[in-house]
Amino acid sequence: MIAVLGATGYVGRAFVDALTGKGWDYITVSRSKTDYTDFQTLVRFLRDSKPEFLINAAGFTGKPNVDACEIARAETIKGNVTLPLTIAHACAVTGTPWGHISSGCSYNGAKVFRDGHWQIESDLTRPDFRTLRREHPENIRGFTEEDEMNFSFRRPPCSFYSGTKALAEEELSKVGACYIWRLRLPFDEHDGSRNYLSKLQRYPRIYDNTNSLSHRGDFVRACLELWERRAPAGVYNMTNPGHVTTREVVEMIQETLGAKRKFDFWSGDDEFYRKGATTLRSNCILEVDKLLATGVKLRPVREALDDALRRWRPEAA
Amino acid sequence: MIAVLGATGYVGRAFVDALTGKGWDYITVSRSKTDYTDFQTLVRFLRDSKPEFLINAAGFTGKPNVDACEIARAETIKGNVTLPLTIAHACAVTGTPWGHISSGCSYNGAKVFRDGHWQIESDLTRPDFRTLRREHPENIRGFTEEDEMNFSFRRPPCSFYSGTKALAEEELSKVGACYIWRLRLPFDEHDGSRNYLSKLQRYPRIYDNTNSLSHRGDFVRACLELWERRAPAGVYNMTNPGHVTTREVVEMIQETLGAKRKFDFWSGDDEFYRKGATTLRSNCILEVDKLLATGVKLRPVREALDDALRRWRPEAA
Repeated sequence: MIAVLGATGYVGRAFVDALTGKGWDYITVSRSKTDYTDFQTLVRFLRDSKPEFLINAAGFTGKPNVDACEIARAETIKGNVTLPLTIAHACAVTGTPWGHISSGCSYNGAKVFRDGHWQIESDLTRPDFRTLRREHPENIRGFTEEDEMNFSFRRPPCSFYSGTKALAEEELSKVGACYIWRLRLPFDEHDGSRNYLSKLQRYPRIYDNTNSLSHRGDFVRACLELWERRAPAGVYNMTNPGHVTTREVVEMIQETLGAKRKFDFWSGDDEFYRKGATTLRSNCILEVDKLLATGVKLRPVREALDDALRRWRPEAA
Repeated sequence: MIAVLGATGYVGRAFVDALTGKGWDYITVSRSKTDYTDFQTLVRFLRDSKPEFLINAAGFTGKPNVDACEIARAETIKGNVTLPLTIAHACAVTGTPWGHISSGCSYNGAKVFRDGHWQIESDLTRPDFRTLRREHPENIRGFTEEDEMNFSFRRPPCSFYSGTKALAEEELSKVGACYIWRLRLPFDEHDGSRNYLSKLQRYPRIYDNTNSLSHRGDFVRACLELWERRAPAGVYNMTNPGHVTTREVVEMIQETLGAKRKFDFWSGDDEFYRKGATTLRSNCILEVDKLLATGVKLRPVREALDDALRRWRPEAA
């Protein structure tokens, strides 16, 4: 039996759907009934229910966006650092294997081959990066799990949210075997406030950058498959292979959904950070070779985007 | 046998001295030999050594002062939140009673009787507060353990250091029985970079405010006595009774040490925060009735200051 914490959240619900689809036995743990933020309650639960695997889909992302984490610091540290650490300790004591949803947002930029060697380009809005991406895509690579996180408390500046997610990864890897699944900008066909495709359609103005993205359903299926295959524990980048610019995604939205409205873009970082955001955003490309090497398959990001848009289900107004 | 973590730190060393003085059996745990930040290592240590009590004197305070914690966020969260939480979990699993050094710095201000009721005064530099303190000291009270912390992530603004100390208190009280000993601006006769009396003598300019203080030796003796008396676990304010202004302490330094130099003061908060500090400082008065009710005795703050200055031992230059 698999236990799911945070089953009512955006990613937790997708895990529940995927587990139901697979016909696997699972239990959702509700905090109001079993306060899993309390170490001893969680240890008792694990001893009594003996799940074969635990999924932590709980966390604090900030509403309506990560800017809120700059203010709600106690909740951000509790949701993203002390809760996962509590789970790690309880799982270590009871010998429960588990997986934690982390984020690719502790990276910023990409690796580019320039002047004869690979280097980190942290500004993916630069015209020369855009040219390179168009003309020599083979000279662009994403970060691998081996690369040091570069958008974290240890490598400032970063957002408070990214800082806590990076710190949790650092702490969890010390405790014991667990999967650290890195999600980025999740989307699918279900319109909603956490869906990247919905956000782009609702922003009064759009910030153009280059990113790797995760299709929510693909992500949870890949997470479960890693466990099913008993792949080695550790950190995995879990984005659909490839990268897209926000402008490219908006074009796909316009083409597939026939959206007639005009989409306005911020003129650049200056204007965006002056008027549109209070804290820095991570924008990054991730490599998923480690995941693919386990045998888990993931669709390229454009295919996943195209599929989500073709099946698009607008939220009831 | 008592185990001491962080035994080489400013407060840890005083614990070691007090334990030696009492002739109690103790062991200092060095991180390089036994990495107590690692949950499973710590659990193993506790199972093997079976200490009857554990003291956590490790933490991250920032060097040369708390301003450094605004930058070193990973270390600040790790030292002040995830380490104590790891210890709490390990002590819960092994049934080890323990004590944690917290701080009074998650409070700011004092309680004053004004307009017919007790209210919180957050600015103890106000002339009317100074007048009240001089003319009606009975109308000033410190915060008790029952009062909500008001200089924390939940009650911003606060310093990053204070935020993490407050968060740890919140998390630890959930896990199990532990003493949470609140220290404030420690001092004694041993000149050194962490000693409040040394700091005052070394600052180019001094910030005048009103505070409760902890004599380091008194503090550790009182901590040990709480455990010796098997006082109930929980939070204890551990300052010497009373409060002093920085200017009063400077006068005592001048009188007792015959310091001939002129001490300059910042003109007020405006100048101090513009030129002398990057993050907000807590200044507060604490009540210690809960501690005294257990039978543990503590000297009034002026007596402890006077004693430290009479025994003053300057550091070799």
